[in-house]
Order: sequence, then structure tokens, then C-alpha cells
Amino acid sequence: MASFGRYGSQSYAPSAPSLPEEQSYGSGIPPPPATANSYAHQPHSHGHGIGYGQDCSYERSGFSPGTHPDVIRSFQMADSDRSGFIDENELQQALSSGYQRFSLGTIRLLMFLFKNPNEHFRIGPKEFAALWGCLGQWRAIFERFDKDRSGKISLTELRDALYSIGYVIPQPVLQLLISKYDNGGGQRDELNFDSFLECGMIVKGLTEKFKEKDPRYAGTATLSYDTFMSMVIPFIVSYN
Amino acid sequence: MASFGRYGSQSYAPSAPSLPEEQSYGSGIPPPPATANSYAHQPHSHGHGIGYGQDCSYERSGFSPGTHPDVIRSFQMADSDRSGFIDENELQQALSSGYQRFSLGTIRLLMFLFKNPNEHFRIGPKEFAALWGCLGQWRAIFERFDKDRSGKISLTELRDALYSIGYVIPQPVLQLLISKYDNGGGQRDELNFDSFLECGMIVKGLTEKFKEKDPRYAGTATLSYDTFMSMVIPFIVSYN
Repeated sequence: MASFGRYGSQSYAPSAPSLPEEQSYGSGIPPPPATANSYAHQPHSHGHGIGYGQDCSYERSGFSPGTHPDVIRSFQMADSDRSGFIDENELQQALSSGYQRFSLGTIRLLMFLFKNPNEHFRIGPKEFAALWGCLGQWRAIFERFDKDRSGKISLTELRDALYSIGYVIPQPVLQLLISKYDNGGGQRDELNFDSFLECGMIVKGLTEKFKEKDPRYAGTATLSYDTFMSMVIPFIVSYN
Repeated sequence: MASFGRYGSQSYAPSAPSLPEEQSYGSGIPPPPATANSYAHQPHSHGHGIGYGQDCSYERSGFSPGTHPDVIRSFQMADSDRSGFIDENELQQALSSGYQRFSLGTIRLLMFLFKNPNEHFRIGPKEFAALWGCLGQWRAIFERFDKDRSGKISLTELRDALYSIGYVIPQPVLQLLISKYDNGGGQRDELNFDSFLECGMIVKGLTEKFKEKDPRYAGTATLSYDTFMSMVIPFIVSYN
């Protein structure tokens, strides 16, 4: 098996808002360059296909102008008490209308990655729109690598999919990742979209955190104990 | 607030078996020195209060000689199909008899930390006995810091409790840890034993991993991307 020495030096991964910062760190990450294969644009681009005549209602709803009506509709259907926020169960319901059903684990991970750091256990319209856009990008990647349209991709395809968006993942790490979806003993070498998304978001989230500490893309970072704990614990506690 | 620059250079934390190694690393960790305040002994010490005349039955049961009968009884009650292993639900049931009820999150974390790396989602007698002993040690620490016997300890007491067993945890990390138990919006500054145990095991597990990469206890480690991912992902995927 080939040895994967480091992550791709230029990442073109599906966008997500910056992870919540628990401590103030110097970032130093250069913005990823745009390429023909770039997924790095902001997922909620404005003004495509939606008339600006609707701006006032968008503003009242809390969404940016240009947000796709499907996104607004899904959010508003889930936000039954019109609080302007949805919790994890409502998010699960909202996404199930536009996509397949997602596990609560994946929902919590999405919530953690997209929520405003000042909010607990809920997201607002803008975060929901960003999340929706990001899901669409992951879906496109999944479908590109699910060549036989079976709704599943293999470990090798997962590796290739992550590679295609800039992440070179060590084989043992990949095996570890998909072992989560092995329900006892047997080898299971295929992931549905829910599991693929969860894997992808974990890889992306941790890689972005690592890159903050490796601004020259050397593949190595020197971390203090405090920094290490502060990088990792949010993933563990927020995603449970 | 004081700045905590590094973890304690000598850790006397409640013992747990080594975490499962996903890759082969050089360890280089000196064994912690024994002190009057040391919790570092192996939790399933042999030959105290149990006659060795029972050795044969212990061997048949899979437990080491000297295992406390309560431990064996709890395991055997949970192992209803006499398979010699218990799964997470059975572990939850087994521990609820000897301790309070534990959340599934805590049970999964215990399972992850104590199970044989070759087993999936189940533990055998020896791992159960080690886990039971470790729980007793955490319980003793909890009770020592729950001075008013309320069954809860505060953030400050959590910090002091972790400090007493060798872990100097940055304040933001502590706040992050206990934010998991804040059910929306309000400040909650108290942990029951279940939550305390979960926090303690996360801190211990991650610190032990970090120390493997910081054999001279400098408080700093240089990690490759592969190493970082391999250190962290087991905590995320196994504990969900």
C-alpha cells in the first residue's frame, strides 16, 4: 500500500464555516487558490435564479438574498414554533425532506460544524443555508464516485473522493474511520451517503484544525498540550 | 485566571489498560513513579481477600484469581447468553447494579478505552474487571472532591480533582468539557458522577496519547498529520 505522507498541500474541500474557536489562535492559513476543480467557494452564493424583489421577505426570514426557496421552505417547515432556530431533531427532519434520512451522529456533527459558537444546540437560517449548500457539494462528490449508482461507495472510492478534494488520508486512518460502520466482526467496505458525509466532515474538520498549526503545509505541526487538547476536545464533546 | 502551561509532568491518574494502538509507535513513556498519592497501580490487583482455592472456577470464568466476587457476579448476570463477552447495553446494565446508571455515551467511552483492540463492541471478563477497578478509583476521587456529599461537583472541584491525579487542564478546555452537560443556554457548573467520569476519561485518554509523543514531558509534541489523525480519530469514531 502506498504511504500517504501528508495531506494535500492545497485543499479544495467543500466549504463549511470556520470551526468554532475556543481559544484565540493566529491563523496564518492562506486562502485556497481557485482552480477548475475548486469546491472552495462559499456555498450560499447570492443572486442566482432568485429575484431581488424578494429581499425584504428574505431579510424578515433571516436568510440572505438569493437563498434558494427550497432551503427557506425546509427551514421554516422544521421551525414549527417560528423561533428562528432549529434544534438537532428539527434539523434531522428538515434534511430528510431534501436528502435521505441522516443518523443523529451525522446531524450532531453538522450542527457542531455549522452552528454559531455562541449558540447551543441550535442553528439559525444563515447557518442552515450554509449547511445545505455544503451538503449539496458532498452529495455531488459522492455521486461522482458512486459510479454504479448503487448508493454506496467503497473504501477505495472514499479514498479517491477525499483525494479529489485535497485530502490524502493514511490508509490506517481510513480503515479506522470506516470501522465505525462495521456492525460487529465482519468486513464492511461500503458506505452510504450518511456515513460518507460523516467521514468526510470528520476528515475535513480535523484537517482544517491541523492546517491552522501547519501554515507552511509541511505536514508536521508542533503543538503544546493546551493547543492539542483545545483542538481535539470540541470534536469529542460536541459530537456526542 | 492562571495560565496552565502543561500537564503535570508526573501523572498519577486512575489506571486503564493502554489505549488500542492503531499504528505502531515507539512509546518511550517511563512508568509513573509510585507515590503515597498514586493511583497508578493496576486496578485488578491479585490475591486480596479472595481465597486462591477458587482459582479453578476463576479460570473457567475467564477472570483472574483474586477478582472480587461482586465483579464476577455483575459480569455473569449481564452475560445472559454465557458467551463470555458483554456488549454496551449489557455493560450499562452490569454497572448500574454496582454504581448509578450511566449514560450510553459514558458506556461507549469506557468500552472504547477498555476493550481488546481485536474485539468489536464487546468486552470480556478481564477487561470488565479492569474497568470495574478503574471506576472504583474514579469514584473515590469524585467522593473526595464532593465535599458536601451532594452527588455533584463544580467546575473548580473538577479542576482540583484532575489536578490531584496529575492533570493540569487549561481553563478553556475545562469549560468546553463541561459545556457538553449544559442543556441549552444556561450556565451549569456542576457534574454528577457519570459526567465527571466521562470528562475524566476523555482528559486521561487524550493526555496519555499526547504523552506518547512527548516522552520528555516538555509539554510540547511535534506531530505529523498522519500521527495527529491516528491519535484523534479513534476517540471520535469509537465514542459515537
